[in-house]
Amino acid sequence: MIKTRFTEAFGVEHPIVQGGMQWVGRAELTSAVANAGALGFLTALTQPTPEALSKEIARCREMTDKPFGVNLTILPAINPPPYAEYRRAIIESGIKIVETAGYKPQEHVDDFKANGVKVIHKCTSVRHGVSSVRYGVDAISIDGFECAGHPGEDDVGGLILIPCAADKIKIPMIASGGFGDARGLVAALALGADGVNMGTRFCATKEAPLHENFKQQMVENDERATDLIFRTMHNTARVAKNKISQEVVALERGGAKFEEVRHLVTGVRGREGLETGDLDAGIWSAGQVQGLVHDVPSVKDLVDRIISEAEEIINKRLASFVR
Amino acid sequence: MIKTRFTEAFGVEHPIVQGGMQWVGRAELTSAVANAGALGFLTALTQPTPEALSKEIARCREMTDKPFGVNLTILPAINPPPYAEYRRAIIESGIKIVETAGYKPQEHVDDFKANGVKVIHKCTSVRHGVSSVRYGVDAISIDGFECAGHPGEDDVGGLILIPCAADKIKIPMIASGGFGDARGLVAALALGADGVNMGTRFCATKEAPLHENFKQQMVENDERATDLIFRTMHNTARVAKNKISQEVVALERGGAKFEEVRHLVTGVRGREGLETGDLDAGIWSAGQVQGLVHDVPSVKDLVDRIISEAEEIINKRLASFVR
Repeated sequence: MIKTRFTEAFGVEHPIVQGGMQWVGRAELTSAVANAGALGFLTALTQPTPEALSKEIARCREMTDKPFGVNLTILPAINPPPYAEYRRAIIESGIKIVETAGYKPQEHVDDFKANGVKVIHKCTSVRHGVSSVRYGVDAISIDGFECAGHPGEDDVGGLILIPCAADKIKIPMIASGGFGDARGLVAALALGADGVNMGTRFCATKEAPLHENFKQQMVENDERATDLIFRTMHNTARVAKNKISQEVVALERGGAKFEEVRHLVTGVRGREGLETGDLDAGIWSAGQVQGLVHDVPSVKDLVDRIISEAEEIINKRLASFVR
Repeated sequence: MIKTRFTEAFGVEHPIVQGGMQWVGRAELTSAVANAGALGFLTALTQPTPEALSKEIARCREMTDKPFGVNLTILPAINPPPYAEYRRAIIESGIKIVETAGYKPQEHVDDFKANGVKVIHKCTSVRHGVSSVRYGVDAISIDGFECAGHPGEDDVGGLILIPCAADKIKIPMIASGGFGDARGLVAALALGADGVNMGTRFCATKEAPLHENFKQQMVENDERATDLIFRTMHNTARVAKNKISQEVVALERGGAKFEEVRHLVTGVRGREGLETGDLDAGIWSAGQVQGLVHDVPSVKDLVDRIISEAEEIINKRLASFVR
């Protein structure tokens, strides 16, 4: 067993988190993560309505009696989703842990805290981590350059970002971006984190509600098989390298305007390709950790393996170096 | 003390390397690193001629009786330096450890090995690491995205690059790029490396032959104070963010041609600014680890601190997590 102040503060067995993932953060995966003793999060906005989220929470409860949370990602939008209603659904469902991400979460943090919900805020820079502490959150999740999805625009690798954050942030901290095995977990703990978040690695598990083709692709891909897109829009995303991501990269390198890039991606990010397993039909988040994904185990086998190997790295490998 | 198969194979006290650094890799720094029990390298091409290199090796020997090495970086050039003559100078000076870097080192590796010189080859990708093993080198130094100087074009963070390399490379491996403190050393060992290389961190020491202004700048800079330049020339370099680096970034973002970028940087990369301490007079390599540089200690104090803190992280922090 590996226990940190994170496992203690959040009442989970292992210092491993499955944070919010659009489309994938459903009851199948989150309940499996909870049953494995790690902390899983349903993704609120994967559900079309607050009512659907309430039902998904109830469905997840039927699949596990261990704690799990809900991710609420706040993005600026012309027609934003009804965030306050999603928040009420979370609170009224009796969820006790929330992962927030995105812009200006203060009103959400205040309401969650007033209702006895612990908040982990995800951010991609030290300065935003420091702000999060001021928001009153209980922990931060700091997401480095290697991550799937949105790494921010600073491009600071986890090797640097984690200890820099640890120097300034004294509440529990989850290291995110580039984690998928025991070596990474021990490295994160050495760098000053209290646990790790895994996204891409949890997508390549039996229980992840994803077409088999995507899981197989993650096994086959190496650490170079991602692209950074939407940099020119200051909304950088790390995605699996495929036909469409390469077209976006070429457009952006060629100095294409916002509208041209948007025109290319409009319509291809939908869910149809996800359901049919057509790897080139859309743009899919994936992290560099693909290079460390070599199998598609059950969530429990993955978590057990990471913990037992981490114990071995600490007790045997590292201990043997000290004379 | 921290002992790994690297310290054993190379006969050094600590698993810490100060690899080649143009202009800085001189006897003052390398002898201080050797005296501190780490492995320092003079940089061959910092010396104007092979004869000058022989003299610098002799000068370094006067300053330490511990082992040190020489870095030989091989770059393609229209008028290349006399590499074979530098190599002879190294061998005839009785140097027993060489760090090679750059393109197609086979003839150099062959000659060094035939003369009883151990070779560490520095590379920036797993595939080049695998090739290096075939060259017959004794160890590799794998340099990740966070590093100062040339990170290659793959942009894989050390958190991923190191374990991916460890999965495929079975000879001793030094992790490079983003290392500057005990947390990083322990992380590298956990990720599968046998030691770390530090460049930027060793530049911010009392003995580094660098104007005080640069050392102070490293202390003041945070992890975001670097720029990646020359990407459009497929010769990416990570440098300290300053007036000139920002001009290059703007030119490259604007789609400038090779000749325009070259015109801007021609003349500003010289040594005058280095000597006068004019921070905006040139382009200077610096890594993201600047964010972890908070002081300018002696080399010995730095090395001793890293080793004793690393022992504490392994024996106390990490050990306390395992129940």
